Amino acid sequence: MSDKSKTKAALLHELARAEAEELVEQCVQQLEDEESKIVNELLEIRLLKKGEHLMRAGDVPTANYGIVSGCIRQYYLVNGEEKTTFFYTTDHSIYSLHGTSKGIPVKYYLTCVEDTSVTVLSYEKELELFERCPRLSTMSRNALKEELANFQEMLATHITSSPEERYNNLLTNRPDLINRVPQYQLASYLGVTPESLSRIRKRMVTAH
Amino acid sequence: MSDKSKTKAALLHELARAEAEELVEQCVQQLEDEESKIVNELLEIRLLKKGEHLMRAGDVPTANYGIVSGCIRQYYLVNGEEKTTFFYTTDHSIYSLHGTSKGIPVKYYLTCVEDTSVTVLSYEKELELFERCPRLSTMSRNALKEELANFQEMLATHITSSPEERYNNLLTNRPDLINRVPQYQLASYLGVTPESLSRIRKRMVTAH
Repeated sequence: MSDKSKTKAALLHELARAEAEELVEQCVQQLEDEESKIVNELLEIRLLKKGEHLMRAGDVPTANYGIVSGCIRQYYLVNGEEKTTFFYTTDHSIYSLHGTSKGIPVKYYLTCVEDTSVTVLSYEKELELFERCPRLSTMSRNALKEELANFQEMLATHITSSPEERYNNLLTNRPDLINRVPQYQLASYLGVTPESLSRIRKRMVTAH
Repeated sequence: MSDKSKTKAALLHELARAEAEELVEQCVQQLEDEESKIVNELLEIRLLKKGEHLMRAGDVPTANYGIVSGCIRQYYLVNGEEKTTFFYTTDHSIYSLHGTSKGIPVKYYLTCVEDTSVTVLSYEKELELFERCPRLSTMSRNALKEELANFQEMLATHITSSPEERYNNLLTNRPDLINRVPQYQLASYLGVTPESLSRIRKRMVTAH
Protein backbone atom coordinates (compact mmCIF):
# COMPACT_ATOMS: atom_id res chain seq x y z
CA MET A 1 0.00 0.00 0.00
CA SER A 2 1.49 3.37 -1.02
CA ASP A 3 1.60 6.32 1.37
CA LYS A 4 -0.92 8.10 -0.80
CA SER A 5 -3.57 5.39 -0.59
CA LYS A 6 -3.49 5.26 3.18
CA THR A 7 -6.82 6.33 4.51
CA LYS A 8 -7.18 8.85 7.30
CA ALA A 9 -8.32 6.00 9.56
CA ALA A 10 -5.15 4.06 8.90
CA LEU A 11 -3.04 7.13 9.63
CA LEU A 12 -4.88 7.72 12.88
CA HIS A 13 -4.31 4.08 13.74
CA GLU A 14 -0.60 4.46 13.12
CA LEU A 15 -0.54 7.65 15.15
CA ALA A 16 -2.30 5.92 18.05
CA ARG A 17 0.25 3.11 17.90
CA ALA A 18 3.15 5.56 17.85
CA GLU A 19 1.69 7.42 20.82
CA ALA A 20 1.13 4.17 22.75
CA GLU A 21 4.69 3.05 21.98
CA GLU A 22 6.00 6.37 23.21
CA LEU A 23 4.09 6.10 26.48
CA VAL A 24 5.32 2.55 27.05
CA GLU A 25 8.83 3.70 26.18
CA GLN A 26 8.63 6.34 28.93
CA CYS A 27 7.65 3.70 31.50
CA VAL A 28 10.31 1.29 30.37
CA GLN A 29 13.01 3.96 30.66
CA GLN A 30 12.75 3.67 34.43
CA LEU A 31 14.11 0.15 34.16
CA GLU A 32 17.70 -0.92 33.70
CA ASP A 33 18.91 -1.22 30.09
CA GLU A 34 18.84 -4.99 29.91
CA GLU A 35 15.41 -5.13 31.56
CA SER A 36 13.85 -2.58 29.24
CA LYS A 37 15.23 -4.49 26.24
CA ILE A 38 13.55 -7.68 27.47
CA VAL A 39 10.27 -5.90 28.27
CA ASN A 40 10.21 -4.35 24.80
CA GLU A 41 10.83 -7.77 23.31
CA LEU A 42 7.99 -9.48 25.21
CA LEU A 43 5.35 -6.77 25.51
CA GLU A 44 2.95 -6.22 22.62
CA ILE A 45 0.72 -3.23 21.99
CA ARG A 46 -2.86 -3.67 20.88
CA LEU A 47 -5.15 -0.91 19.65
CA LEU A 48 -8.90 -1.16 20.15
CA LYS A 49 -11.68 0.98 18.75
CA LYS A 50 -14.46 2.56 20.81
CA GLY A 51 -17.18 -0.07 21.29
CA GLU A 52 -14.81 -2.98 20.61
CA HIS A 53 -14.70 -5.85 23.12
CA LEU A 54 -11.41 -6.95 24.67
CA MET A 55 -13.16 -9.89 26.30
CA ARG A 56 -16.60 -11.48 26.51
CA ALA A 57 -18.24 -13.72 29.10
CA GLY A 58 -17.11 -17.26 28.35
CA ASP A 59 -13.68 -16.27 27.03
CA VAL A 60 -10.67 -17.85 28.69
CA PRO A 61 -8.07 -15.14 29.28
CA THR A 62 -4.55 -15.78 28.08
CA ALA A 63 -2.80 -12.53 28.91
CA ASN A 64 -2.48 -9.58 31.29
CA TYR A 65 -3.32 -6.18 29.91
CA GLY A 66 -2.13 -2.72 30.94
CA ILE A 67 -4.12 0.34 29.89
CA VAL A 68 -1.84 2.80 28.08
CA SER A 69 -4.58 5.22 27.04
CA GLY A 70 -8.36 5.22 26.72
CA CYS A 71 -10.97 3.59 28.93
CA ILE A 72 -12.31 0.04 29.22
CA ARG A 73 -15.60 -0.72 30.93
CA GLN A 74 -16.22 -4.00 32.74
CA TYR A 75 -19.82 -5.19 32.91
CA TYR A 76 -21.91 -8.25 33.67
CA LEU A 77 -25.10 -9.21 31.87
CA VAL A 78 -27.74 -9.74 34.57
CA ASN A 79 -31.15 -10.75 33.18
CA GLY A 80 -30.30 -9.06 29.91
CA GLU A 81 -29.24 -5.85 31.65
CA GLU A 82 -25.67 -4.51 31.56
CA LYS A 83 -24.40 -3.92 35.10
CA THR A 84 -21.19 -1.88 35.05
CA THR A 85 -18.67 -2.95 37.66
CA PHE A 86 -15.47 -1.09 36.79
CA PHE A 87 -13.78 1.44 34.53
CA TYR A 88 -10.15 0.76 33.69
CA THR A 89 -8.13 3.82 32.66
CA THR A 90 -4.44 4.69 32.18
CA ASP A 91 -2.05 2.70 34.43
CA HIS A 92 -4.73 0.21 35.48
CA SER A 93 -3.90 -3.40 34.85
CA ILE A 94 -6.35 -6.11 33.88
CA TYR A 95 -5.11 -9.37 35.31
CA SER A 96 -8.06 -11.34 33.96
CA LEU A 97 -8.29 -13.07 37.21
CA HIS A 98 -8.68 -16.75 37.88
CA GLY A 99 -7.78 -17.56 34.29
CA THR A 100 -4.06 -17.34 34.88
CA SER A 101 -3.28 -21.00 35.10
CA LYS A 102 -6.65 -22.64 35.46
CA GLY A 103 -8.27 -21.87 32.12
CA ILE A 104 -11.50 -20.74 33.77
CA PRO A 105 -13.70 -18.59 31.52
CA VAL A 106 -14.54 -15.08 32.73
CA LYS A 107 -18.12 -14.08 33.54
CA TYR A 108 -17.82 -10.45 32.49
CA TYR A 109 -17.40 -8.31 29.41
CA LEU A 110 -14.66 -5.77 28.75
CA THR A 111 -15.54 -3.13 26.18
CA CYS A 112 -13.93 0.13 25.11
CA VAL A 113 -15.64 3.38 26.16
CA GLU A 114 -13.11 5.22 23.96
CA ASP A 115 -10.43 4.26 21.46
CA THR A 116 -8.00 2.44 23.72
CA SER A 117 -4.44 1.15 23.60
CA VAL A 118 -3.27 -1.66 25.87
CA THR A 119 -0.08 -3.55 26.46
CA VAL A 120 -0.46 -7.31 26.15
CA LEU A 121 1.69 -9.73 28.13
CA SER A 122 0.68 -13.34 27.63
CA TYR A 123 0.90 -15.62 30.66
CA GLU A 124 3.75 -17.52 28.98
CA LYS A 125 5.72 -14.39 28.29
CA GLU A 126 5.07 -13.18 31.82
CA LEU A 127 6.76 -16.30 33.18
CA GLU A 128 9.67 -15.73 30.81
CA LEU A 129 9.88 -12.07 31.84
CA PHE A 130 10.15 -12.80 35.55
CA GLU A 131 12.64 -15.59 34.97
CA ARG A 132 14.89 -13.28 32.99
CA CYS A 133 14.29 -10.21 35.22
CA PRO A 134 13.84 -11.29 38.87
CA ARG A 135 13.79 -7.66 40.00
CA LEU A 136 10.62 -7.08 37.98
CA SER A 137 9.00 -9.97 39.83
CA THR A 138 9.33 -8.00 43.06
CA MET A 139 8.06 -4.83 41.40
CA SER A 140 5.12 -6.77 40.03
CA ARG A 141 4.34 -8.23 43.46
CA ASN A 142 4.30 -4.75 44.98
CA ALA A 143 2.07 -3.47 42.17
CA LEU A 144 -0.30 -6.39 42.78
CA LYS A 145 -0.42 -5.51 46.48
CA GLU A 146 -1.34 -1.92 45.67
CA GLU A 147 -4.02 -3.14 43.29
CA LEU A 148 -5.36 -5.55 45.89
CA ALA A 149 -5.40 -2.74 48.45
CA ASN A 150 -7.40 -0.60 46.04
CA PHE A 151 -9.97 -3.30 45.43
CA GLN A 152 -10.30 -4.12 49.13
CA GLU A 153 -10.89 -0.45 49.82
CA MET A 154 -13.36 -0.11 46.93
CA LEU A 155 -15.30 -3.11 48.20
CA ALA A 156 -15.36 -1.68 51.72
CA THR A 157 -16.41 1.71 50.39
CA HIS A 158 -19.16 0.15 48.32
CA ILE A 159 -20.50 -1.74 51.33
CA THR A 160 -20.33 1.18 53.73
CA SER A 161 -21.52 4.08 51.59
CA SER A 162 -24.73 5.42 50.07
CA PRO A 163 -25.03 6.06 46.30
CA GLU A 164 -24.58 9.78 47.06
CA GLU A 165 -21.37 9.11 48.97
CA ARG A 166 -20.18 6.83 46.16
CA TYR A 167 -20.73 9.64 43.67
CA ASN A 168 -18.78 11.97 45.95
CA ASN A 169 -15.93 9.46 46.12
CA LEU A 170 -15.91 9.27 42.35
CA LEU A 171 -15.71 13.07 42.12
CA THR A 172 -12.75 13.02 44.51
CA ASN A 173 -10.84 10.00 43.28
CA ARG A 174 -11.67 9.72 39.57
CA PRO A 175 -13.05 13.08 38.44
CA ASP A 176 -12.05 12.39 34.82
CA LEU A 177 -14.63 9.59 34.60
CA ILE A 178 -17.56 11.96 35.15
CA ASN A 179 -17.26 13.48 31.68
CA ARG A 180 -15.74 10.56 29.79
CA VAL A 181 -18.38 7.97 30.56
CA PRO A 182 -22.08 7.96 29.55
CA GLN A 183 -24.34 8.81 32.49
CA TYR A 184 -26.32 5.54 32.36
CA GLN A 185 -23.08 3.58 32.71
CA LEU A 186 -21.96 5.74 35.65
CA ALA A 187 -25.37 5.24 37.26
CA SER A 188 -25.10 1.46 36.85
CA TYR A 189 -21.61 1.55 38.40
CA LEU A 190 -22.95 3.51 41.40
CA GLY A 191 -25.86 1.10 41.75
CA VAL A 192 -28.63 3.61 41.00
CA THR A 193 -30.97 4.41 38.11
CA PRO A 194 -29.94 7.18 35.69
CA GLU A 195 -32.83 9.26 37.14
CA SER A 196 -31.48 8.89 40.68
CA LEU A 197 -27.99 9.90 39.52
CA SER A 198 -29.47 12.97 37.87
CA ARG A 199 -31.22 13.88 41.15
CA ILE A 200 -28.00 13.35 43.14
CA ARG A 201 -26.12 15.68 40.78
CA LYS A 202 -28.79 18.35 41.06
CA ARG A 203 -28.82 18.17 44.87
CA MET A 204 -25.02 18.54 44.93
CA VAL A 205 -25.10 21.54 42.61
CA THR A 206 -27.72 23.18 44.81
CA ALA A 207 -25.77 22.39 47.97
CA HIS A 208 -22.55 24.02 46.79
CA MET B 1 5.79 -21.15 87.06
CA SER B 2 5.39 -24.85 87.83
CA ASP B 3 3.26 -27.17 85.68
CA LYS B 4 0.81 -27.46 88.56
CA SER B 5 0.15 -23.78 88.88
CA LYS B 6 -0.67 -23.36 85.23
CA THR B 7 -4.24 -22.30 84.87
CA LYS B 8 -6.66 -23.93 82.46
CA ALA B 9 -6.53 -20.74 80.38
CA ALA B 10 -2.76 -20.96 80.07
CA LEU B 11 -2.98 -24.60 79.04
CA LEU B 12 -5.59 -23.78 76.42
CA HIS B 13 -3.32 -21.02 75.19
CA GLU B 14 -0.44 -23.45 74.84
CA LEU B 15 -2.70 -25.94 73.11
CA ALA B 16 -3.85 -23.28 70.63
CA ARG B 17 -0.23 -22.40 69.91
CA ALA B 18 0.69 -26.05 69.40
CA GLU B 19 -2.25 -26.52 67.05
CA ALA B 20 -1.38 -23.40 65.09
CA GLU B 21 2.26 -24.52 64.84
CA GLU B 22 1.10 -27.90 63.58
CA LEU B 23 -1.09 -26.32 60.89
CA VAL B 24 1.71 -24.04 59.75
CA GLU B 25 4.05 -27.04 59.77
CA GLN B 26 1.71 -28.86 57.37
CA CYS B 27 1.77 -25.93 54.95
CA VAL B 28 5.50 -25.52 55.16
CA GLN B 29 6.06 -29.20 54.39
CA GLN B 30 5.04 -28.53 50.80
CA LEU B 31 8.17 -26.41 50.44
CA GLU B 32 11.71 -27.56 49.88
CA ASP B 33 13.76 -28.29 53.03
CA GLU B 34 15.86 -25.16 52.92
CA GLU B 35 12.80 -22.98 52.20
CA SER B 36 10.75 -24.39 55.04
CA LYS B 37 13.68 -23.86 57.42
CA ILE B 38 13.83 -20.18 56.42
CA VAL B 39 10.04 -19.74 56.65
CA ASN B 40 10.02 -21.26 60.12
CA GLU B 41 12.82 -18.93 61.13
CA LEU B 42 11.04 -15.77 59.90
CA LEU B 43 7.37 -16.50 60.54
CA GLU B 44 5.90 -15.84 63.95
CA ILE B 45 2.63 -17.12 65.37
CA ARG B 46 0.35 -14.85 67.33
CA LEU B 47 -2.70 -15.93 69.32
CA LEU B 48 -5.64 -13.60 69.77
CA LYS B 49 -8.68 -13.90 72.00
CA LYS B 50 -12.26 -13.48 70.87
CA GLY B 51 -13.04 -9.74 70.87
CA GLU B 52 -9.38 -8.74 70.71
CA HIS B 53 -8.33 -6.23 68.03
CA LEU B 54 -5.52 -7.05 65.61
CA MET B 55 -5.67 -3.51 64.23
CA ARG B 56 -7.53 -0.25 64.79
CA ALA B 57 -8.25 2.70 62.51
CA GLY B 58 -5.17 4.94 62.65
CA ASP B 59 -2.69 2.09 63.13
CA VAL B 60 0.15 1.85 60.65
CA PRO B 61 0.51 -1.79 59.64
CA THR B 62 3.96 -3.34 59.87
CA ALA B 63 3.29 -6.94 58.86
CA ASN B 64 1.30 -9.35 56.73
CA TYR B 65 -0.93 -11.81 58.55
CA GLY B 66 -2.20 -15.21 57.54
CA ILE B 67 -5.22 -16.72 59.29
CA VAL B 68 -4.33 -20.17 60.66
CA SER B 69 -7.59 -20.71 62.55
CA GLY B 70 -10.47 -18.62 63.81
CA CYS B 71 -12.19 -15.65 62.24
CA ILE B 72 -11.32 -11.94 62.02
CA ARG B 73 -13.91 -9.34 61.14
CA GLN B 74 -13.03 -6.14 59.31
CA TYR B 75 -15.25 -3.14 59.96
CA TYR B 76 -15.37 0.63 59.52
CA LEU B 77 -16.87 3.06 62.00
CA VAL B 78 -19.34 5.20 60.05
CA ASN B 79 -21.09 7.82 62.16
CA GLY B 80 -20.53 5.68 65.23
CA GLU B 81 -21.96 2.59 63.55
CA GLU B 82 -19.87 -0.51 62.82
CA LYS B 83 -20.11 -1.42 59.13
CA THR B 84 -18.73 -4.90 58.53
CA THR B 85 -16.82 -5.24 55.26
CA PHE B 86 -15.13 -8.64 55.45
CA PHE B 87 -14.63 -11.85 57.39
CA TYR B 88 -11.17 -13.38 57.21
CA THR B 89 -11.02 -17.12 57.94
CA THR B 90 -8.48 -19.95 57.52
CA ASP B 91 -6.09 -19.45 54.59
CA HIS B 92 -7.06 -15.83 54.06
CA SER B 93 -4.20 -13.37 54.16
CA ILE B 94 -4.36 -9.85 55.51
CA TYR B 95 -1.88 -7.79 53.55
CA SER B 96 -2.79 -4.47 55.15
CA LEU B 97 -1.57 -3.15 51.91
CA HIS B 98 -1.17 0.54 51.45
CA GLY B 99 0.91 0.48 54.56
CA THR B 100 3.57 -1.73 53.05
CA SER B 101 6.13 0.90 52.32
CA LYS B 102 4.26 4.13 52.70
CA GLY B 103 3.41 4.11 56.39
CA ILE B 104 -0.18 5.10 55.74
CA PRO B 105 -2.56 4.37 58.64
CA VAL B 106 -5.49 2.04 57.96
CA LYS B 107 -9.07 3.29 58.18
CA TYR B 108 -10.60 0.05 59.42
CA TYR B 109 -10.67 -2.19 62.46
CA LEU B 110 -9.78 -5.88 62.60
CA THR B 111 -11.31 -7.77 65.51
CA CYS B 112 -11.59 -11.45 66.39
CA VAL B 113 -15.03 -13.07 66.10
CA GLU B 114 -13.51 -16.19 67.69
CA ASP B 115 -10.22 -17.10 69.34
CA THR B 116 -7.85 -16.78 66.40
CA SER B 117 -4.30 -17.71 65.49
CA VAL B 118 -2.39 -15.88 62.79
CA THR B 119 1.04 -16.05 61.23
CA VAL B 120 2.92 -12.76 61.34
CA LEU B 121 5.46 -11.81 58.70
CA SER B 122 6.82 -8.29 59.16
CA TYR B 123 7.50 -6.31 55.99
CA GLU B 124 11.22 -6.44 56.72
CA LYS B 125 11.20 -10.20 57.13
CA GLU B 126 9.10 -10.55 53.98
CA LEU B 127 11.83 -8.81 51.99
CA GLU B 128 14.42 -11.10 53.56
CA LEU B 129 12.26 -14.15 52.80
CA PHE B 130 11.93 -13.40 49.10
CA GLU B 131 15.60 -12.53 48.81
CA ARG B 132 16.59 -15.86 50.31
CA CYS B 133 13.82 -17.87 48.56
CA PRO B 134 13.15 -16.43 45.09
CA ARG B 135 10.76 -19.31 44.29
CA LEU B 136 8.47 -18.17 47.11
CA SER B 137 8.32 -14.75 45.51
CA THR B 138 6.66 -16.29 42.46
CA MET B 139 4.30 -18.34 44.65
CA SER B 140 3.44 -15.19 46.56
CA ARG B 141 2.75 -13.28 43.35
CA ASN B 142 0.39 -15.99 42.18
CA ALA B 143 -1.38 -16.03 45.55
CA LEU B 144 -1.76 -12.25 45.34
CA LYS B 145 -3.29 -12.60 41.87
CA GLU B 146 -5.82 -15.11 43.19
CA GLU B 147 -6.64 -12.80 46.08
CA LEU B 148 -7.00 -9.86 43.70
CA ALA B 149 -9.25 -11.96 41.48
CA ASN B 150 -11.42 -12.79 44.49
CA PHE B 151 -11.79 -9.18 45.53
CA GLN B 152 -12.53 -8.01 41.98
CA GLU B 153 -15.24 -10.66 41.78
CA MET B 154 -16.62 -9.79 45.21
CA LEU B 155 -16.82 -6.12 44.25
CA ALA B 156 -18.56 -6.99 40.99
CA THR B 157 -20.94 -9.31 42.81
CA HIS B 158 -21.71 -6.66 45.39
CA ILE B 159 -22.48 -4.10 42.69
CA THR B 160 -24.60 -6.41 40.56
CA SER B 161 -26.60 -8.31 43.17
CA SER B 162 -29.49 -7.73 45.56
CA PRO B 163 -29.10 -8.40 49.31
CA GLU B 164 -31.04 -11.66 48.78
CA GLU B 165 -28.63 -12.76 46.05
CA ARG B 166 -25.69 -11.76 48.25
CA TYR B 167 -27.05 -13.97 51.03
CA ASN B 168 -27.42 -16.80 48.52
CA ASN B 169 -23.80 -16.31 47.42
CA LEU B 170 -22.71 -16.48 51.02
CA LEU B 171 -24.63 -19.75 51.50
CA THR B 172 -22.88 -21.17 48.43
CA ASN B 173 -19.36 -19.85 48.88
CA ARG B 174 -18.90 -19.46 52.64
CA PRO B 175 -21.58 -21.54 54.36
CA ASP B 176 -19.49 -21.81 57.54
CA LEU B 177 -19.88 -18.08 58.20
CA ILE B 178 -23.65 -18.35 58.60
CA ASN B 179 -23.38 -20.04 61.99
CA ARG B 180 -20.07 -18.65 63.18
CA VAL B 181 -20.90 -14.98 62.91
CA PRO B 182 -23.53 -12.97 64.84
CA GLN B 183 -26.54 -12.15 62.66
CA TYR B 184 -26.24 -8.36 63.03
CA GLN B 185 -22.67 -8.54 61.69
CA LEU B 186 -23.76 -10.71 58.76
CA ALA B 187 -26.59 -8.25 58.05
CA SER B 188 -24.15 -5.32 58.06
CA TYR B 189 -21.84 -7.23 55.68
CA LEU B 190 -24.77 -7.86 53.30
CA GLY B 191 -25.80 -4.21 53.52
CA VAL B 192 -29.19 -4.79 55.16
CA THR B 193 -30.74 -4.36 58.59
CA PRO B 194 -30.87 -7.41 60.89
CA GLU B 195 -34.67 -7.39 60.39
CA SER B 196 -34.31 -7.56 56.61
CA LEU B 197 -31.85 -10.44 56.92
CA SER B 198 -34.31 -12.26 59.12
CA ARG B 199 -37.04 -11.78 56.47
CA ILE B 200 -34.70 -12.98 53.69
CA ARG B 201 -33.94 -16.13 55.66
CA LYS B 202 -37.63 -16.81 56.30
CA ARG B 203 -38.50 -16.33 52.62
CA MET B 204 -35.78 -18.76 51.62
CA VAL B 205 -36.91 -21.38 54.13
CA THR B 206 -40.49 -21.06 52.83
CA ALA B 207 -39.32 -21.26 49.22
CA HIS B 208 -37.43 -24.55 49.65
